[in-house]
Amino acid sequence: MNHPLLVELASLLPPANLILNADRLAPRLLDARKRLRGQTLGMALPSSVEEAAMIITRCRAHGVSIVPQGGNTSLVGGATPMSETSLLLGCDRLKRIRQIDPCGYTLTAEAGCVLDDIRDAAQTEARLFPLWLGSSGSACLGGLIGTNAGGLQVQRYGNTRELVLGIEAVLPDGQIFRGLHPLRKRNAGYDLKQLFIGAEGTLGFVTAATLRLFPQERGQAVAMVALDHAEQVLALFDQTKAAVGEVLTAFEMMDSEAMILMARHFPTLQQPFAAPPPYSVLIALSGSESDGVLAERLMELLLASGGENAVLAQDGSQAKALWALREHIPAAQTRQGPSIKHDLALPISAIPAFIAEAASLLKQWLPQVRPVVFGHVGDGNLHYNLGLLPEAETGQIEAEANGLLFDLVAHYGGDISAEHGIGRLRIAAADAHHDPVERALMRQVKAMLDPTGLFNPGVLF
Amino acid sequence: MNHPLLVELASLLPPANLILNADRLAPRLLDARKRLRGQTLGMALPSSVEEAAMIITRCRAHGVSIVPQGGNTSLVGGATPMSETSLLLGCDRLKRIRQIDPCGYTLTAEAGCVLDDIRDAAQTEARLFPLWLGSSGSACLGGLIGTNAGGLQVQRYGNTRELVLGIEAVLPDGQIFRGLHPLRKRNAGYDLKQLFIGAEGTLGFVTAATLRLFPQERGQAVAMVALDHAEQVLALFDQTKAAVGEVLTAFEMMDSEAMILMARHFPTLQQPFAAPPPYSVLIALSGSESDGVLAERLMELLLASGGENAVLAQDGSQAKALWALREHIPAAQTRQGPSIKHDLALPISAIPAFIAEAASLLKQWLPQVRPVVFGHVGDGNLHYNLGLLPEAETGQIEAEANGLLFDLVAHYGGDISAEHGIGRLRIAAADAHHDPVERALMRQVKAMLDPTGLFNPGVLF
Repeated sequence: MNHPLLVELASLLPPANLILNADRLAPRLLDARKRLRGQTLGMALPSSVEEAAMIITRCRAHGVSIVPQGGNTSLVGGATPMSETSLLLGCDRLKRIRQIDPCGYTLTAEAGCVLDDIRDAAQTEARLFPLWLGSSGSACLGGLIGTNAGGLQVQRYGNTRELVLGIEAVLPDGQIFRGLHPLRKRNAGYDLKQLFIGAEGTLGFVTAATLRLFPQERGQAVAMVALDHAEQVLALFDQTKAAVGEVLTAFEMMDSEAMILMARHFPTLQQPFAAPPPYSVLIALSGSESDGVLAERLMELLLASGGENAVLAQDGSQAKALWALREHIPAAQTRQGPSIKHDLALPISAIPAFIAEAASLLKQWLPQVRPVVFGHVGDGNLHYNLGLLPEAETGQIEAEANGLLFDLVAHYGGDISAEHGIGRLRIAAADAHHDPVERALMRQVKAMLDPTGLFNPGVLF
Repeated sequence: MNHPLLVELASLLPPANLILNADRLAPRLLDARKRLRGQTLGMALPSSVEEAAMIITRCRAHGVSIVPQGGNTSLVGGATPMSETSLLLGCDRLKRIRQIDPCGYTLTAEAGCVLDDIRDAAQTEARLFPLWLGSSGSACLGGLIGTNAGGLQVQRYGNTRELVLGIEAVLPDGQIFRGLHPLRKRNAGYDLKQLFIGAEGTLGFVTAATLRLFPQERGQAVAMVALDHAEQVLALFDQTKAAVGEVLTAFEMMDSEAMILMARHFPTLQQPFAAPPPYSVLIALSGSESDGVLAERLMELLLASGGENAVLAQDGSQAKALWALREHIPAAQTRQGPSIKHDLALPISAIPAFIAEAASLLKQWLPQVRPVVFGHVGDGNLHYNLGLLPEAETGQIEAEANGLLFDLVAHYGGDISAEHGIGRLRIAAADAHHDPVERALMRQVKAMLDPTGLFNPGVLF
């Protein structure tokens, strides 16, 4: 409390808006993968955009850097303060749903609203906010926007970027950017809100956003299909898009390794197939048609695509059970032990060749390595993890694995990060694999908005 | 030809890539609404991104400003060079479809590809590129991106911004930004391509883009509904979204004035109703279901919403005839005589109140004024035009009308431009109505990328 910024903030903020207690700070200093343990002066929790602007202005005056933090669910260390002279800026007290306009299909929420609460608020007005991901009970809107979160329904509804109509944010110079336009169309020059989406808190502090809503879905249908080859996954995707494209909500894939891990660590989950097939694909349809109509359309598709090896959920609880298999993979991997995780973006058409070549290169490199491959294959997004490694977390093995996979992903026109972002853990890879013009331009944008590097230093660059 | 830049370019470019002939330049100097007649040194037509970079570097060395021009269909003067010492930079020779990846649902095209040609190329692979607008036979990709074009299917598929995955562009400093990523997800820091979309050629020259494709549609259904009140339009929209949301492709509205104009100037078009109702709504469904299934769903919706006053197209040619009514309104208005045009964005829920209040204010202001209101009501986008005015094009009347409508649109949380952009004609309105922080930030972005104001001076700012 001896830092002059804290003395000043203590005099300006209600006591509940400034956290200095070490026990309360501790969980905010450990990243979601428990790999980074940070340091901080303390944590400020503004309860309005004006209060946030005041805090930022005071930090600026004192030369204290700011680390915005949402639900602290970043997988790349993007929200962990690593300097004892930086201030955590949280959105826990920005909790209001400011407005719901069911007729206009928009909802305006503050940055601290948890995703599940936003989804619930929309539902009370018979609307859907379609963003959905594993951490929906703790991830909050500020973090979702800062990371352009993806998740399980991107195939149908897009990433966070596609769901944000307007943003309110405090800029590093303390000015308030008031851009909460509830408009589906607004061509008014550069679309500045885009800069803050996916910026990982490096360009300012998002305090609220206006989001797109959709009609509540009336029915759903879910199936799991067993396939022998990755090429068959693509062929099924093609048939699915043609047959039921606009009601296709998710097209997820798990390899046999993922299914084996899950069966081992969650033995009570019901397995759809006698033995884990090389590839299991989860297809989810949803929309304005009834469960029955959607199930019929899915059944037709499965028959037409020769899907004798498919399980179609007969009711909502069976649908949940199939989804549970997909959702438990990350937890199963955690129970299994340390692993090296990757979040790869690929042109969908390159996925079979990539999977085959990656497996072969990894085997040559380290014979005991076991890739676990799953993810949003319909979005060209593979979570490609390496488990069963000796001392998997040690630097050298991880660096070599990253090098091997990132080179291969670049060869296939893909990218090192699909939805997890760059954070602290992917900076070297971004410098190595991204176009230098792009990286330089990003640094220019950063220097323009945050010339003194006040916001989230050490993240992105 | 005595300007040293032209001498230099003539020595560096093939003859076909440099246009100096006044007759060939003339149509490129007149804007689409025939309100601006420009001037230029000449027109360069690069045939590769490297050639574009060379031209831009030479312009920069000579201090000659650059006006990018696509199909020259801007409605706000965004593509008209107004200085005899600026160079037009066209994309007529950037015509290649570089790649189609049907499996990955992407297409990479150069900036000079005309929208219809892109749609056709996608169709040969059983894919849909869904952007569709009145000028689809002449608007080209560079201009569509520069203006973030909207059009007739935004309700379902989004604006151009939502359809662009990657961009290749030459920056004002002559560097090439190589961002043609065919990836649905890529969280790699700031999404820089967003800066060029809707920038109206003020931040560089887009040479190519990678676009999202969709499954080809199998069926369609179209209906026209007659309604008495704007509130009923909203109620019908609400019912439509709930009943058939994901197959709703367009929800367009025309008021009686628009229908009267159209009947007068296109008497051969078949009118759906005996007398023009206060509001006619066109509902278009399309998707993976058959014509018959979609028509049945549309019929059910119309019956449930009490739509006894509705016409459902019985086949493709009737569907075309209904669409023709909507599509001919701009031409009918042009035949009628001069008019003052507005492209207003509004929260959908505010539209009935806005329409009523605008009509009443306009009547008080100038009793003989006749508003013609039509547009993409499902996107909150009204084309609000004033016809039958004495000397409608004269400055004072137009300035007063703009002032009145823009103040009202701001009062309702809307905006002065939904899809047409700012160009030259909306700069004063943007300065008056947009947040000064936003305008200042845009100027900062402009100064960062184009510090000497090389690109499209006089547009946006």
